[in-house]
Amino acid sequence: MSDVDLTSLTIAVLGGTGPQGRGLARRFAVAGLDVVLGSRDASRAAEAAAGLADVGRVRGTTNAEAAAAGDVVLVVVPWDGHAELLASLTAELDGKIVVDCVNPLGFDKQGAYALPVEEGSATQQAAAILTGSRVVGAFHNVSAVLLEDPEVESVDTDVLVLGDDREATDLVQALADVVPGMRGMYGGRLRNAHQVEALTANLISINRRYKAHAGVRVTDV
Amino acid sequence: MSDVDLTSLTIAVLGGTGPQGRGLARRFAVAGLDVVLGSRDASRAAEAAAGLADVGRVRGTTNAEAAAAGDVVLVVVPWDGHAELLASLTAELDGKIVVDCVNPLGFDKQGAYALPVEEGSATQQAAAILTGSRVVGAFHNVSAVLLEDPEVESVDTDVLVLGDDREATDLVQALADVVPGMRGMYGGRLRNAHQVEALTANLISINRRYKAHAGVRVTDV
Repeated sequence: MSDVDLTSLTIAVLGGTGPQGRGLARRFAVAGLDVVLGSRDASRAAEAAAGLADVGRVRGTTNAEAAAAGDVVLVVVPWDGHAELLASLTAELDGKIVVDCVNPLGFDKQGAYALPVEEGSATQQAAAILTGSRVVGAFHNVSAVLLEDPEVESVDTDVLVLGDDREATDLVQALADVVPGMRGMYGGRLRNAHQVEALTANLISINRRYKAHAGVRVTDV
Repeated sequence: MSDVDLTSLTIAVLGGTGPQGRGLARRFAVAGLDVVLGSRDASRAAEAAAGLADVGRVRGTTNAEAAAAGDVVLVVVPWDGHAELLASLTAELDGKIVVDCVNPLGFDKQGAYALPVEEGSATQQAAAILTGSRVVGAFHNVSAVLLEDPEVESVDTDVLVLGDDREATDLVQALADVVPGMRGMYGGRLRNAHQVEALTANLISINRRYKAHAGVRVTDV
């Protein structure tokens, strides 16, 4: 859905050693993009990157070095620690497109549920902390299991991209479009990010009921 | 997705004179179900019902009489007045399956946004008021334009059904299934209703950007 050229860009993935971060890194590397995985522990990031060496150009380092190296920086860290990590990286992330992918969820024996966030959503919290960055929300509802599975060639899902900066949301839509099956779609302003993050709790309920790896498609677009 | 038999049931639609209520009534009537439209003004309900006389069995009356007549009662009223209406109908709705379809949204020049709800969501507010009823949330994200268009034979969307009462959610899934193209799907517990209601704000943003009547499909189910 976009003509943005991404081939010269380096994509950083903070929290890149978890399933979601590794899965997104895999897909971007398969598409031929340069990917830098970040982690609190550089050796764990290097290990995760080595596991993707056969699919493309992926290297691993600290979150701070990955943030500095990335032209576009995805935030795929646990909600617990989200604010602290971003606050520590304001210099590295200044002026960059930062894509928050974090879902603030709680879990109990009845499953997942949305946690309240003072700023409204994880994405809005990122925007409040990273006042010099161009913050976008995206990739909230994509199954890590499907992303990580090398047998899955096409990831059948739309990626709702949330933000108030048109050039930034257009670029992130284009980034989603590089993954076969995935379609980047503008999904509204930052103030409407909460429900897209929280919808992941519903997809977890659906996965449990239907034994699925649910994703979302928007119809009539 | 269900074997529930709905043919003997009367479906009431409170707030049945608005586009969403009329649209849902049309689809259930086309499917051969008995439908009663409710409105604050019985003559407006009768008028809306007369407009659907050629598609099936639809009659119009007051919200209170419709609530009393329905075996399953859909609540499709404006958010402003939702609590007051339900509080006035606790007797009529006692013991019944009540399907809340209301999206608490605000609108300004930047579009739609989710309103905070003290109980968490419109559906949870209904459950808090109607303690003798079996409250389910559903039909939040279905385009009224498509529902009302007689040229649209198939409404290409999933209907996420939210609730803590399995028998009730199963029945409401079956109710969605009677509409060609529509698929009723369990979407999680009542505590996860808010984000499904609020997602309608994102669909409104998508409709504006892409000139669409967006709906939602869940993939891999």
